[in-house]
Amino acid sequence: MTVRLQHRSVRSVALLATAAMVAACGGRSGAQAQGGGAGKDVLALMQTRGLTEADVQAALKTYTPTGKHDEYYTFASGGHGGNVIVIGVPSMRILKYIGVFTPEPWQGFGYGDESGEVLRQGFRGGQEITWADTHHPALSETAGEYDGQFLFINDKCNPRVAVIDLSDFVTKQIVGSELIASEHGATFVTPNTDYVIETSQYPAPLGGVYADVSEFDTKYRGAMIFWKFDRKQGRIVPADSFAIELPPYMQDLADCGKKVSDGWVFCNSINTERAYGGILEGKPPLESGATQNDMDYLHCIPWRKAEAVAKAGKTETIAGMRVIRMQTAIDEGLLAFVPQPKSPHGCDVTPDGTGVVVGGKLDTHTTVYDILKIAEQMEQKQYVGKDPYGVPILDFKKSIFGQCEIGLGPLHTVFDDKGFAYTSVFIETVVAKWSLKDLKVVDKLDTHFNIGHLVAAEGDTVSPDGKYLIAMNKWALDRFAPVGPLLPQNFQLVDISGEKMTLLYDMPLPLGEPHNAQMVKAGKLKPIEVYKPIGMNPYTHAVDPNATIAGKERIERKADGVHVYMTSVRSHFTPDIVRVKEGDRVFLHVTNVEQAKDATHGLAIGGQNVNVSLEPGKHCNIEFVANKAGVFPFYCTEFCSALHLEMAGYLLVEPK
Amino acid sequence: MTVRLQHRSVRSVALLATAAMVAACGGRSGAQAQGGGAGKDVLALMQTRGLTEADVQAALKTYTPTGKHDEYYTFASGGHGGNVIVIGVPSMRILKYIGVFTPEPWQGFGYGDESGEVLRQGFRGGQEITWADTHHPALSETAGEYDGQFLFINDKCNPRVAVIDLSDFVTKQIVGSELIASEHGATFVTPNTDYVIETSQYPAPLGGVYADVSEFDTKYRGAMIFWKFDRKQGRIVPADSFAIELPPYMQDLADCGKKVSDGWVFCNSINTERAYGGILEGKPPLESGATQNDMDYLHCIPWRKAEAVAKAGKTETIAGMRVIRMQTAIDEGLLAFVPQPKSPHGCDVTPDGTGVVVGGKLDTHTTVYDILKIAEQMEQKQYVGKDPYGVPILDFKKSIFGQCEIGLGPLHTVFDDKGFAYTSVFIETVVAKWSLKDLKVVDKLDTHFNIGHLVAAEGDTVSPDGKYLIAMNKWALDRFAPVGPLLPQNFQLVDISGEKMTLLYDMPLPLGEPHNAQMVKAGKLKPIEVYKPIGMNPYTHAVDPNATIAGKERIERKADGVHVYMTSVRSHFTPDIVRVKEGDRVFLHVTNVEQAKDATHGLAIGGQNVNVSLEPGKHCNIEFVANKAGVFPFYCTEFCSALHLEMAGYLLVEPK
Repeated sequence: MTVRLQHRSVRSVALLATAAMVAACGGRSGAQAQGGGAGKDVLALMQTRGLTEADVQAALKTYTPTGKHDEYYTFASGGHGGNVIVIGVPSMRILKYIGVFTPEPWQGFGYGDESGEVLRQGFRGGQEITWADTHHPALSETAGEYDGQFLFINDKCNPRVAVIDLSDFVTKQIVGSELIASEHGATFVTPNTDYVIETSQYPAPLGGVYADVSEFDTKYRGAMIFWKFDRKQGRIVPADSFAIELPPYMQDLADCGKKVSDGWVFCNSINTERAYGGILEGKPPLESGATQNDMDYLHCIPWRKAEAVAKAGKTETIAGMRVIRMQTAIDEGLLAFVPQPKSPHGCDVTPDGTGVVVGGKLDTHTTVYDILKIAEQMEQKQYVGKDPYGVPILDFKKSIFGQCEIGLGPLHTVFDDKGFAYTSVFIETVVAKWSLKDLKVVDKLDTHFNIGHLVAAEGDTVSPDGKYLIAMNKWALDRFAPVGPLLPQNFQLVDISGEKMTLLYDMPLPLGEPHNAQMVKAGKLKPIEVYKPIGMNPYTHAVDPNATIAGKERIERKADGVHVYMTSVRSHFTPDIVRVKEGDRVFLHVTNVEQAKDATHGLAIGGQNVNVSLEPGKHCNIEFVANKAGVFPFYCTEFCSALHLEMAGYLLVEPK
Repeated sequence: MTVRLQHRSVRSVALLATAAMVAACGGRSGAQAQGGGAGKDVLALMQTRGLTEADVQAALKTYTPTGKHDEYYTFASGGHGGNVIVIGVPSMRILKYIGVFTPEPWQGFGYGDESGEVLRQGFRGGQEITWADTHHPALSETAGEYDGQFLFINDKCNPRVAVIDLSDFVTKQIVGSELIASEHGATFVTPNTDYVIETSQYPAPLGGVYADVSEFDTKYRGAMIFWKFDRKQGRIVPADSFAIELPPYMQDLADCGKKVSDGWVFCNSINTERAYGGILEGKPPLESGATQNDMDYLHCIPWRKAEAVAKAGKTETIAGMRVIRMQTAIDEGLLAFVPQPKSPHGCDVTPDGTGVVVGGKLDTHTTVYDILKIAEQMEQKQYVGKDPYGVPILDFKKSIFGQCEIGLGPLHTVFDDKGFAYTSVFIETVVAKWSLKDLKVVDKLDTHFNIGHLVAAEGDTVSPDGKYLIAMNKWALDRFAPVGPLLPQNFQLVDISGEKMTLLYDMPLPLGEPHNAQMVKAGKLKPIEVYKPIGMNPYTHAVDPNATIAGKERIERKADGVHVYMTSVRSHFTPDIVRVKEGDRVFLHVTNVEQAKDATHGLAIGGQNVNVSLEPGKHCNIEFVANKAGVFPFYCTEFCSALHLEMAGYLLVEPK
């Protein structure tokens, strides 16, 4: 720290000299009167606010004036917030939190309308699960390019995958399989988004059955699930999905081949030691037990071939999932291992599709595997051994391009448009820029602190943009004004357009602990502004059968309860008085008949756990039981007009 | 818009001329080589990014380099997000979302540990309520100054008040009374935080009983609740709290007297027409019925006198709350009305305590009431009439300093250090700066768009700072890259240090719809960095009886279930294998034995809805029933170390 500050001071002196001259020069020329004295102002502001020359440049590279839009969206997982965070780049302003696995009332997500059905899809074994640990978002791709249509996101804790539609930024579906008990390596898509890949992490008996951990080697297993995505419907089709059984290692991150390697998927692993802790029983802690081996295994899987095997019916159904058993996978040539040095992490296919870059948490290298060599050896069955489960192992040296000496603790790698790779190096806490061509580090940038993932502009596609990179740092320590013992994470925006990386911005993460992100050109997304035509149900993508138009509002008592056909418009709900009897089931069918952009209403009902968000044109169906007699105001929760406070009514629940 | 853009262009030309000269000048002097050519770089960046001179200044006034801290915290309500948003000023970076009424798993708020008890305090009439519509945060005050200790926040929908401790930014308590059915005007504190004030909004029969809305005039009522705050305990004491019954108008925002007016509280109201909608029954919509009268009533209440009346036992207990009935309030001189023009909103006591500023949503003035004149008239019983409930009414003209012609739709007013007031003007969509001395507007600033509240640095205290103001705009429209039909709000940071207001920054609100905020000097807060000593329970503020130290971890089967005494430290939990039987109640007593800042762990358990946040030194107690046999991994959810992924264990639930 001291070194950096001194360095700054030196640069500041030089800069102030420049700025002072600039001010003097501006003054003499008379331009100050015309232009307001920019040089002088800059100088004064630098002095007042203690800004260095680098700070001024960073400020001007990131500041985005009113009404101007960011160039990129970054979609970051919210970690154990269970959501997705949408960030504008380069301003690093958070544009939206998207509710995914965790209910969120501002969006009306999980508070009374059909969005609750989406959340219920994610309940597990009859247990209500209302949070998630989201890790790796994946944008849908067409020919290996982000197409801006969908975003997928996983849950590490209760293995699930969600589908977010980027036309309205709403979570439409959650799928999960009880085949596996946890995951980490998800979501990753094939280059045309045929499949969304989810890989188990902590082994467990397949299908949720019980076996003591002492039977780890024989009864515990891993798996890779291929969730079939139907782009037209915008939904995953569980019935068309399949899985491959894997040994009880901890499968970790995956990435799909592209271009020359389209059809392949790679997944690193840790804990080939098959340790499982047991500290109180005298065994070493898992972090020690799982780091004994110098090499673990990169899993190499030709997924198109696996798809054919699954289609041919060579599967067994476990917990509703078609599973290619491990022996079948071996027999059919669907699985081979290549050794990976030490405590591997990160698994990133190069833009041209020829290589896979893997780091090692306890290593000092990144290793670049040669996919074509791997494919060739697998085709020719050139194996050097087998693991305890019979999975063939390829020769390490014959399977790589080479290694780059990078620093202690390399994790993840992203790419730019000039042939460079950028690797997060956790223990050294830097971003290392290195050449894919000659495997040499060309620059390093300090991060603050404990970098995990990193993301570059279109950096996971076949044609990265360069320009921007975000270091996703796990610890913030002293970076921001203190907010108690639980600190934000710190996203650091880095300019990677030049030879040297330069730090542009420190952004605190106020909710959630992002793991990975995707950065996409803003212009690729074409979100809708309002729901059209009026009465659209965002979950069926059709005008709802209960949609109500102005003048047709009514209350009908039916066999199943009281149905209220309601509209909202600035500044009233119609009807605004709803009379029911204690114990009645109440159905509110509400259409926001507005079509003006941003004319969103909310509908909250006192005494019930109900709040929905009614964007313009949207219809939603609310259902609850009026289980308590009394007077319950309902009102608009989204400030909509000068008379927003008056946009209210009464639910009158008469006692039995 | 066109006008503004043209205006910008003109300024840009001038600025570019300056910058060009600056560049040339710097080049000639040789300073470019030393300093890197700041002028040239500024020019180039302005051209590349389309920045005007004003943009450059705004960028440099807001950009906060890595490691430098913001000058102010802004605490904004999260609206129907049910939380509180902590924002750094001037960078406008969100530093934290504090979970309050809505469960939030990143903070482990409501996902298995004692925080769930806090949320359960807020359940209402047996109904689980897991969201809120937060509106008006209030910082605790000492002698009318923010003291940085506590923050209070309300729920409009299910009337409740929460207490957040700013030593750790954690919600410690939720209180609510079924006396009222909704509120809006909360929270507001007395100048030494003796009481936290909450005022009902939509009238209803007191105490949650049923009466049809046709009995509105006779059976529906409003109320103002005075929640007694015990600063030493950091908790509200419901038993020492009281309320005053009010007529069935819609009581709205309140503010407490200060300095010369200490002991008073004022509250505006709308709907003295006592309209209640009934559109399908042929009545006018509420927004029309409630805006017939030219004047509604400012409620004037000497709260210290009311406190004495409550202490004297002149109350009736309704729904557990001691209530000063309306007639008692009238008889004891606790309540009088002053007319307020049209559809009043905003109620803000001036820093010197002499005046109350009230806007009118359908008015063009702010009205400044003279508190001492009001007090004098009430003492001398100089009334000009009574409302239908017998509440005495004061003469409008005798009760005011005067009015300021301000524009259409004035709402809220904040203050600076130079005798100016700043009023949000909704329909005109500007901030109006005006002199308190001569009630003249001196400046107006466009906002984007539909400004609601506004907040100034220490602007609600007896000594505002001036410097910064935030316009809290309800609609964003085209300001940010699109994110679907549900748009963020837009906070606009304004520099109010000069004669003219200047716009500095547009900040999207990514989650929630803030209503009001408080801005406090950062140095006033002294948050803790870690919990000390190890084993602290944040909800009891004491070392937990179940706190566990390293070496004493154990699993004990007791009469009520299986008790696990667990520690967490980088990178393992001890014990890491927990064996129970199906149906067992499981108690995890977990102590994070770390004391390094930011060394937070999380603990998530598969198959249960459990995720807790374990900041350094914290202890928490988790309870759940292992109701399903199987193998459930548990693990650390907060990236803590290189071997974080290995910080895991197994909950083994043996079948019955």
